[in-house]
Amino acid sequence: MTIVLHGFWRSLATFRVRAALNLKGLAYRENIVDLSKGEQFEAGFHQLNAQHALPVLEHAGLRLTQSLPIIEYLDETWPQISLLPADAEGRARVRALAQITTADAHPLVVPRVRNYLGSAFGVDEEGKMAWARHWLDLGTAAIEDRLANDGVAGCYAHGDQITLADLALVSHVVGARLFQANLAQAPKLLALTERCLSLEAFAKAHPLVQVGAPAA
Amino acid sequence: MTIVLHGFWRSLATFRVRAALNLKGLAYRENIVDLSKGEQFEAGFHQLNAQHALPVLEHAGLRLTQSLPIIEYLDETWPQISLLPADAEGRARVRALAQITTADAHPLVVPRVRNYLGSAFGVDEEGKMAWARHWLDLGTAAIEDRLANDGVAGCYAHGDQITLADLALVSHVVGARLFQANLAQAPKLLALTERCLSLEAFAKAHPLVQVGAPAA
Repeated sequence: MTIVLHGFWRSLATFRVRAALNLKGLAYRENIVDLSKGEQFEAGFHQLNAQHALPVLEHAGLRLTQSLPIIEYLDETWPQISLLPADAEGRARVRALAQITTADAHPLVVPRVRNYLGSAFGVDEEGKMAWARHWLDLGTAAIEDRLANDGVAGCYAHGDQITLADLALVSHVVGARLFQANLAQAPKLLALTERCLSLEAFAKAHPLVQVGAPAA
Repeated sequence: MTIVLHGFWRSLATFRVRAALNLKGLAYRENIVDLSKGEQFEAGFHQLNAQHALPVLEHAGLRLTQSLPIIEYLDETWPQISLLPADAEGRARVRALAQITTADAHPLVVPRVRNYLGSAFGVDEEGKMAWARHWLDLGTAAIEDRLANDGVAGCYAHGDQITLADLALVSHVVGARLFQANLAQAPKLLALTERCLSLEAFAKAHPLVQVGAPAA
């Protein structure tokens, strides 16, 4: 049963799902939806997701959207290498860490929001970048505080198991770097990011090594 | 083991958790954190959540944040009246519907974002309201499309079982009404909202009947 991931190199949400597929050793085919050409608004993609957002994952006749629900689906369907802790407390902590990225910081920096700042309020490119950095820096501070004060010691965000939280937090750092946000005050976040990116599953999923990404 | 919910009347994320607690018949005490007085920035609350965001739920020595992870924790800890479908496909659909609210629309209309539009770009109150309505309307359209075209027929968002999706979608409608956004094109969303709000668990959780809410 083929898995098809509709994604694009610069989509941080696609990056999370791509890394999850790699961590689980699942074969998939990626279909590129070129956001820079507006392909997400074309009729073919509209049929897949009327929100015009990436990623979309197709499997066994299902069409799934939203990165965290997709990752939870993968985890439930292929539980061998689990991306969630075994205990309810741990799952709550991991999911909350992930949401600092996916529900607090990332929604504010996506292209549709930056574009609307321009069209509604005349914000220029420099202003849009400053806006993005503001929210990414707040997210970075919140994540680092959580890792430092509420942490379960280990190599990754929650002990020595790679979880949903690492997928989200690494995507946060990759995004922060794209926007040249400030990561200097986040040593714990940076350390777990480097550990993850040293793994092939994350390295092969990185936005900057995908088809269509700009040369270094 | 007492459950303490730190919340505030106008917090839509607190509303979701309050309704979940009611649906499960769990007793809890609500501690009011008055966002209008900036109590979320005071030292006592900072100790609970350095993100200065609501809700926070305390239970059995745990301190949990982020509405959806809290609701999943409640569901796992008290599974009697489940708020998630029994199948992985259903759970993925329900979680994705919820995220249209919690990861796409709601993050753009919270006070910190509206305040920052004012301080960074000089956006006035009317501009902030128009901004909020823009993102809420996009969310409404996305939700209605999903309910109409991808639906599992029934009384609620996913068949006849009240789920996490209903908690999120009703909070979306309540928020859209607070901002006088456009709900006229969303008959399916409105119908499930009315069904939910006719239940005591939702009605008692509604922002406008909490301590501190403005008189009608």
